[in-house]
Amino acid sequence: MNPVKIGLLGLGTVGGGTVNVLKRNAAEISRRAGCNIEVAYASARDLNKPRICDTTGIELTTNAAEIVENPDVQIVVELIGGDTLAHEMVMRAIANGKHVVTANKALIAKHGNEIFAAAQKQGVMVAFEAAVAGGIPIIKAIREGLAGNHIEWLAGIINGTGNFILTEMRDKGRDFDDVLAEAQRLGYAEADPTFDVEGIDAAHKLTILASIAFGIPLQFDKAFTEGITRITREDVEYAEEFGYRIKHLGVSRRTDSGIELRVHPTLIPEKRLIANVDGVMNAVLVQGDAVGPTLYYGAGAGADATASAVVADIVDIARVLSAEPSHRVPYLAFQPDQMADTPILSMDEVVTAYYLRMAVIDTPGVLAEITRILGESGISIEAVIQKAGRGEGDTVPLILMTHEVKEGQMNKAIAAIESLDAVQGEITRIRVESLG
Amino acid sequence: MNPVKIGLLGLGTVGGGTVNVLKRNAAEISRRAGCNIEVAYASARDLNKPRICDTTGIELTTNAAEIVENPDVQIVVELIGGDTLAHEMVMRAIANGKHVVTANKALIAKHGNEIFAAAQKQGVMVAFEAAVAGGIPIIKAIREGLAGNHIEWLAGIINGTGNFILTEMRDKGRDFDDVLAEAQRLGYAEADPTFDVEGIDAAHKLTILASIAFGIPLQFDKAFTEGITRITREDVEYAEEFGYRIKHLGVSRRTDSGIELRVHPTLIPEKRLIANVDGVMNAVLVQGDAVGPTLYYGAGAGADATASAVVADIVDIARVLSAEPSHRVPYLAFQPDQMADTPILSMDEVVTAYYLRMAVIDTPGVLAEITRILGESGISIEAVIQKAGRGEGDTVPLILMTHEVKEGQMNKAIAAIESLDAVQGEITRIRVESLG
Repeated sequence: MNPVKIGLLGLGTVGGGTVNVLKRNAAEISRRAGCNIEVAYASARDLNKPRICDTTGIELTTNAAEIVENPDVQIVVELIGGDTLAHEMVMRAIANGKHVVTANKALIAKHGNEIFAAAQKQGVMVAFEAAVAGGIPIIKAIREGLAGNHIEWLAGIINGTGNFILTEMRDKGRDFDDVLAEAQRLGYAEADPTFDVEGIDAAHKLTILASIAFGIPLQFDKAFTEGITRITREDVEYAEEFGYRIKHLGVSRRTDSGIELRVHPTLIPEKRLIANVDGVMNAVLVQGDAVGPTLYYGAGAGADATASAVVADIVDIARVLSAEPSHRVPYLAFQPDQMADTPILSMDEVVTAYYLRMAVIDTPGVLAEITRILGESGISIEAVIQKAGRGEGDTVPLILMTHEVKEGQMNKAIAAIESLDAVQGEITRIRVESLG
Repeated sequence: MNPVKIGLLGLGTVGGGTVNVLKRNAAEISRRAGCNIEVAYASARDLNKPRICDTTGIELTTNAAEIVENPDVQIVVELIGGDTLAHEMVMRAIANGKHVVTANKALIAKHGNEIFAAAQKQGVMVAFEAAVAGGIPIIKAIREGLAGNHIEWLAGIINGTGNFILTEMRDKGRDFDDVLAEAQRLGYAEADPTFDVEGIDAAHKLTILASIAFGIPLQFDKAFTEGITRITREDVEYAEEFGYRIKHLGVSRRTDSGIELRVHPTLIPEKRLIANVDGVMNAVLVQGDAVGPTLYYGAGAGADATASAVVADIVDIARVLSAEPSHRVPYLAFQPDQMADTPILSMDEVVTAYYLRMAVIDTPGVLAEITRILGESGISIEAVIQKAGRGEGDTVPLILMTHEVKEGQMNKAIAAIESLDAVQGEITRIRVESLG
């Protein structure tokens, strides 16, 4: 089968990430999509600039227009950013009958109505998962996953820079200006941080989410924005005293009289999951009448995370380029004839850390005996809690946390420890996952 | 346009919920799908049993076979449960060229390979979003939203009953047996709780997740399961001392030698978001090489939440029943000619609670004056923090949390308070969202 040919506009962070992900996961992606995806052409302002990706095999140009006019290109992936050249190129690509994938929130929020009307007329697709919350598939979740719901409201931490600043202010008791300067040094914030800290970037994203949730046109000009520049560390502390966290939240809610569309600093009860989304991470909470509250969490920016969403859109479009059943979403994500025979591991082969609780007779040398057995089995100890008895000879609980080891080895060690005279009954063993 | 005709097998909790959601949100669903969806036929064992849904206009039968043989039915929705009658009916529906939607995890985990092979041969779709984690669109997220990723591992709290029990044990220091008995009284646990507390239900779901994440056939017989019946409240407390929570986790991880597939009690660092998923809620953490960690959270069971996933599958299938562009996923979730002109509210119309921080001169009557202004504006106070000065006349911070009020009213009250002599400078105002 002929590969699907991509023309990529822009080879910066997200463009480079997209080339890398498509190359690194090419086999797996074609097992899912049922076809190969090839970045055949790419444009960049300066072809001599160092890149994060290998461009071997890609025909490069400094002229984006060449790509949107090229009859060989089936999908134009716009990763230029901004809404001048990007806008022009997307409109020309659509006019030429090409499908479009974009990560450009400003473009969609401000010019989406025009873009979609043109695309509808031409019968082409325009996909923009990467425009909101980076790698989190939040557009797909709302648009398709919650299609049965009357969506009541949504609220999101959708700007990583702002969330990093507020998290640092809380964790370290630092001032806004101090953290902003650090964020700029780390590359989390732009030299001109206005878009991030004043909520404009978040308002672009919120405008898009509100449109797909409530079935309304994109209306960025009606979004309210208030920045986080005036939040003090005292506010963060007082909020804490009340049991709240301060987050820069985008909120859109359907009311009897209309739809709220607003970005501003917000206190959230600390027990809510979203109040605990820290650092540069993003999360969106969506309340549907049928599903109740749902939350979607992940990286909101970064080369590979954003590329994850761009590639998902490319695969979606590639699947429906023809209407044959083979282009439908496969039942199990991978094509039926592409299932792998990778073995399922026995538990003996599984590697985890362990929590062990046992009852031991409180005599000298018991702990030494147990740690010797563990050591001989290659198991190292992370932490110990030994409860004191009232006197020697009492039965007391001993709790151990171990580092990671194969379960087979742990089973042998447990059997050996259980056979000690000083150990009473069976050892309680619970596996430990750091999930990080 | 002719409606898409559904034949529903089973009118219990999920069947009733599906009828209710399709009816309640009919207009919104057809705005998304581009067609009407009609439950034309339904089967139930006992037609005289009281139902949670209105069955007016649905042709009822006690014989499920009539529905899978009916040439008028385009999509069979199997909500019988179990894997005997359900299995037979799904195979017959497929043989008759009908698309199938099911919420049946045991059926897919144990017989999915056979079902998908038959469906592939017949060119029909089989969708099963509701089989894992209820209303959370986790199948779609992994299968489509993360299609660009090499998925490294996933871990989920995918049994609400078990999570309710562990949460109660921790929050209230209760014993397993005691909480299980309460869960049975509340209807969260079956009279025979084996499937839930021994991890069998979770293993069904994990088997499905592993298959779509790693592109392997369904292999339920190779899943390891360990229940939570032996976890004591002491274990829960000791875990806490180490900074961990105990969760009944399904874990599937790709290693160089094979794939781990296991359900067991697990300690998780308390700072992880998933460690804070409590009660009957579900959550799945998925780690992709490009996207990094992503988390999906929501209700794992319940009539309407599960129906949310069933309806999403029906809409997905309805969209591709024909190959016309009008059946593609619409750009903004709703069909282009179905955009609503619901107004965006001005901030004056928005209702939220508020955190107010101001500097006041510490003189008698200041607080009374401020609360009088708020009271006259219809604003009631939830909490106050007043910091003592060193003496009368000092400037001290005063912080107020209010109940919900329209922002327009709050703006007037703030202006009035700022005009008081005892109030220094501007009031810091931060909006409060309970998000619940």
